[in-house]
Order: sequence, then C-alpha cells, then structure tokens
Amino acid sequence: MSAPTPYTATAEEAYLDRLLAARLLLPTNLPGIYARGSAFTQLMEGLERAITRYGRTESTQILRCPPVLPRSIVEKCGYFQSFPNLLGCMCCFTGGTTEHEALLSAVDSGADLLPHLELSDVVLAPAACYYVYPYLTGTLPQAGKTTDIENWCYRHEPSLNPMRMRAFRMREFVHAGTPEQALGFRDSWIERAQAFLARLGLSATVAPADDPFFGAGERLMAAQTLKFELLIPIVSDTRPTAVMSSNYHKDHFGHLFDIRTPDGAAAHTTCIGFGMERIVLALLAQHGLQLSKWPTALREHLGLA
Amino acid sequence: MSAPTPYTATAEEAYLDRLLAARLLLPTNLPGIYARGSAFTQLMEGLERAITRYGRTESTQILRCPPVLPRSIVEKCGYFQSFPNLLGCMCCFTGGTTEHEALLSAVDSGADLLPHLELSDVVLAPAACYYVYPYLTGTLPQAGKTTDIENWCYRHEPSLNPMRMRAFRMREFVHAGTPEQALGFRDSWIERAQAFLARLGLSATVAPADDPFFGAGERLMAAQTLKFELLIPIVSDTRPTAVMSSNYHKDHFGHLFDIRTPDGAAAHTTCIGFGMERIVLALLAQHGLQLSKWPTALREHLGLA
Ligand SMILES: Nc1ncnc2c1ncn2[C@@H]1O[C@H](COP(=O)(O)O)[C@@H](O)[C@H]1O
Ligand SMILES: Nc1ncnc2c1ncn2[C@@H]1O[C@H](COP(=O)(O)O)[C@@H](O)[C@H]1O
Ligand SMILES: [Zn+2]
Ligand SMILES: [Zn+2]
Repeated sequence: MSAPTPYTATAEEAYLDRLLAARLLLPTNLPGIYARGSAFTQLMEGLERAITRYGRTESTQILRCPPVLPRSIVEKCGYFQSFPNLLGCMCCFTGGTTEHEALLSAVDSGADLLPHLELSDVVLAPAACYYVYPYLTGTLPQAGKTTDIENWCYRHEPSLNPMRMRAFRMREFVHAGTPEQALGFRDSWIERAQAFLARLGLSATVAPADDPFFGAGERLMAAQTLKFELLIPIVSDTRPTAVMSSNYHKDHFGHLFDIRTPDGAAAHTTCIGFGMERIVLALLAQHGLQLSKWPTALREHLGLA
Repeated sequence: MSAPTPYTATAEEAYLDRLLAARLLLPTNLPGIYARGSAFTQLMEGLERAITRYGRTESTQILRCPPVLPRSIVEKCGYFQSFPNLLGCMCCFTGGTTEHEALLSAVDSGADLLPHLELSDVVLAPAACYYVYPYLTGTLPQAGKTTDIENWCYRHEPSLNPMRMRAFRMREFVHAGTPEQALGFRDSWIERAQAFLARLGLSATVAPADDPFFGAGERLMAAQTLKFELLIPIVSDTRPTAVMSSNYHKDHFGHLFDIRTPDGAAAHTTCIGFGMERIVLALLAQHGLQLSKWPTALREHLGLA
C-alpha cells in the first residue's frame, strides 16, 4: 500500500473473505465465530511460545483458566455497570421431565427458550485478568507479583471485521505492587511490546485510549492516561487496529480484592494484554497468507514447520 | 493402595483437597470451576504435545475452535433432547439506558437477572466434535477424513469430585468415512490409546458404556456397543474414571450433515475423545503431586522443565 488506504467496511470484509478462502479461518453462520484451521493454529501456537520466551521471568506466576468464571467476580468488578452489552451470561435447564417436554416444544417451534432456563452462576470471561485479582488477596512480597494468564474471552460484538471476534484469546501479564511498580510495568511493557512486535516485522504506534463504556459513561480514562494501546494498520492506514493494551488501574482492584503492599496500603495493579488473533491477523496482512513464503528468520522465530 | 479402596465421596474430595493444597488447582467459590496453576499447566501442555506426536498423521486436518458454537448446530444434533441438563446456553443484555438502570437495580438487590437478558445464538460446546461435522459436508475422499480438534467444553455438573469439572478440555480425533473405516478407527484407537496411556505409566481397562441420557431416555448405546471407555482407577479401584471414550455414531451425523462417501452413501463417523484434565489427574495420582520426583523418562516424554 503506497498511499494511505481509507477505512471502509469493505476493506475489513474483503480481508475476512481472503482469510476464509485460504481456510485460515473457517466460517460458522455467525459473524465473529470462526474455527481456526491448521495454519492459523500453527501461528497461534508459535506466537504463544514467542510471548512466553519474551515475557516470562523466573518469578512469574502461571495461571490458565476456563472460559467461564464466577459471575460474582464480574459483578464485583462492576462489569454490569461499564460494559453490560458485551457480557456473555450463562443460563441452563434445571427442570424435570415435564419441563423438558415444554422445552422441546419450544425448540421445535422456534419459540424463545429463555422462559425454560435459569441463570447460572458463571459468565464468559470478558478479559483474562478478572481471574487473577481474587488470587492476589493478601500481602504482596516487596517486589510485587506478576501473573501470566491466557484465556478465551467473549465479547458480544458480532462483526464482519475479522479483527473483531466474539470469541478470542487474550494473553495478559498482570502486575500487582506499589504505584511505582505498577506504572513502571505499564510503561516498560509499552516499549517491550513494541520491540516484540518489531521482531515479528510489525510496526506499532502507541496511543492513549479509553474503554468503550456503555452509554454516557465515564470517558475519563484517556484524559487520565491510564490506558495505552499499540496500534497496527491491518487493512487501513487511517484506522489501525489495537493489538495490545497496557492498563494501569491505580488501586481499584487493590481495594476491591484487599491486595496490599507490605506497608499495608492497597496495591496498585497494571495489566498488559495481547490480542492473540489480532497479532496473527497483522502478521498475515504484513507477510501474506502463504506461510511458506514468509522470511525464514520469522518462520524459525515462530517455530513454523 | 494394596487392598482395593472402596469408592466414597470423601476419597474424591480428599484428592481435591490435596490438589488445592499443592496449588495444582486453584479454587473459585464454585465446585468444578478451577484455575490451573503452573505445574498443572505444564502437564496439560506436555500431554497435548504427546497426543499430537502420537495421534496426528500427514493427512490429519487440524481445527481449533472457540468454547462457544452456534446453538443451531447443537439443536440439530439433538442435544436438547438427550442432555438438556448439561448444556450451557448463553444470554446477554441488549437493552438501552433505561433497561440498563433496571438491570443494575437487579444486580444490586440480588434479584434474578434473567428477565433483563435475551437468549443468544451460541452455546458453550459440550463436546469438541460438534464443531467438526458441519465442515465435513460433501463428498469425502476414498480414505475418509480425520480431524484433530481440541476444545474447552462445558457440562453443567457441579461436583467436588475433581475428575468431574464444569469446564474442561477435550482432545478429539474424528473420522468420517465408510462403516469399515469408522469402526476400524474406533477399535484401533481403543488399543492405541491404551498403549499411549501405558507409556505414561497408566494402566487402563476397556469397557462398553453409554452416555447419561436425560430421563428415561435411550439406554441403548451399551447394548449396541457403540461407545467404549478407557477407565483408570484414580481414587478408587472399584469406581475407576473414564479418561477417554471411543464413540461410533453409525451414519447419524453423516445423514444430519450430508457427509457422503464417494459411492454417495451417508458417511459413518467415529470420534475418540481424551479428557485432558482427567489424564493429568490420573498421572498425578499415579506418580505423585511432586513433578520433580517423577521418573526421568516420563518427565522427558512430557517435556517437563
Ligand atoms: N472483539 C475482539 N476481537 C479480537 N480481539 C480483541 C477484541 N477485543 C479486544 N481484543 C484484543 O484484546 C486486547 C485487550 O483488550 P481490551 O481489554 O479491550 O484493551 C486488545 O488490545 C485486542 O488486541
Ligand atoms: N465433567 C467432566 N470433567 C472432566 N472431564 C470430563 C467430563 N466429562 C467428560 N470428560 C472427559 O471427556 C471424555 C469424553 O467425554 P464423553 O463425550 O462424555 O464420552 C471423557 O472420557 C472424560 O475423559
Ligand atoms: Zn486485563
Ligand atoms: Zn465426540
């Protein structure tokens, strides 16, 4: 692309078409819900290993969690206030034989099934780090604690833009400690993530951002420069895609989950999150859809067969 | 254990306590929903690689899918008939500002949230292979097709038995082809899986089984010997745990999804499924909770650091 390409919905949908034609992604009848084929899976696995080598240290705690977590955690974190439209709640059938017949009638006639179901105590994780904070309750060591977590996340935002999926994988490093540690973690990771992406042949710019709060909401984040994103042009130079975010939460979670620094104060936290599929989509856009034609050094770096 | 240990709920719960104390699993307030710690994660990754080396061939198709799939697929496969009590459906908030206030009131007062939500078009995958069948529509090659899929699965069966989780990972190999191919796939994998487990130091017995159909249901499977399980005693010699199942579906899915062998007949399918966490739990019970004390050959086989 020599001249900047303007953003159009067609550019994103055209990219999705190419990905489907190449069987990198396989479609369902639902936009944003895709199976990943062989090559895409290889890339996800290679990227996962590369982030591990780059991001983990001796003292990093490792957590891997299910795609569902207790609804009580998400309620406590105020997700229903901030992003009610994005959350996937879980509901299930708890009736007996009679209720089962009624449920099956509804299924057969295409009627609404919800009256036959009950709300469950789990939701689909909207981000990976929600699992981490409850496990940090208590007094932290002097150097704070860093956790490495990777989760399937769900956000209810159907789209034909392949960079906007309903179900996607997020890799996060979460630090809890003093304000200096948490801010340092956020800022150093902005640089480190840019370097990491550069090694993959991806050029990312940094910009302050805020989360898409529901309704009028609090558009304060960018003004307070709590959140930064790393942006890469995937289908458009004028509308680049956020492939990673670096978020400083002050003592919000420290208070909520009684996480304390050794001096007894509420800990400060930062999470940095990689959108795994988005980085893979950036790689494919940058280096082409044929993995066999990628630079040898990059193929080796990602452990591609 | 020299004499057979009788099955008691206490034996399973005692094992869960040991796993939590060793931080192999980390608790939430919900039985069956756990985070996996460092060591458990290493084992899951090592097991995943071992199954890949053992089970994949040149021609195996690879699919990796989200934990949610279209509800229409699960309806089509009759899951609401057979296991309505196990299925996790998804519901979400689709209202505006006024409805949001009502939702928040309900959250704050602990009232039922379901009246504020709508049923969504995805469910949590109850098994991995449901994702595969729609992609097999059409005419198969002469040798049939084998797909390697791994998914987070959800089954609504809360339990303090650590072998019975609500969210767990299933690795499946699915074959579609002629009746001879599908039956041969089922039978050869029963032997191959036993050999695979034996190399891990696990001794598995084979038994016909049937799925836990809801209500009176169809208890025909075991009589027809469609399904076999590989069982390992984990906390009890008299009540061993199924760590893998091998399921022959005749032409059920072949008809449903219009999968045809070259002669035009509906294809027959078989899926073999490994319960990843259950195998790891069997390894821990067999070799102990301290990975550093495991036999060197086994540690190398699983790529443990
Ligand atoms: N709908 C989505 N589809 C794919 N990736 C996403 C989606 N939403 C967020 N991400 C990725 O996850 C990262 C962290 O998300 P956020 O918590 O919104 O900052 C983003 O920088 C994206 O890379
Ligand atoms: N609730 C569960 N928790 C953990 N693993 C399970 C659970 N249900 C099934 N599995 C595993 O998944 C395999 C296939 O399940 P099935 O489709 O029920 O035969 C079983 O053999 C188990 O190893
Ligand atoms: Zn986060
Ligand atoms: Zn299956």
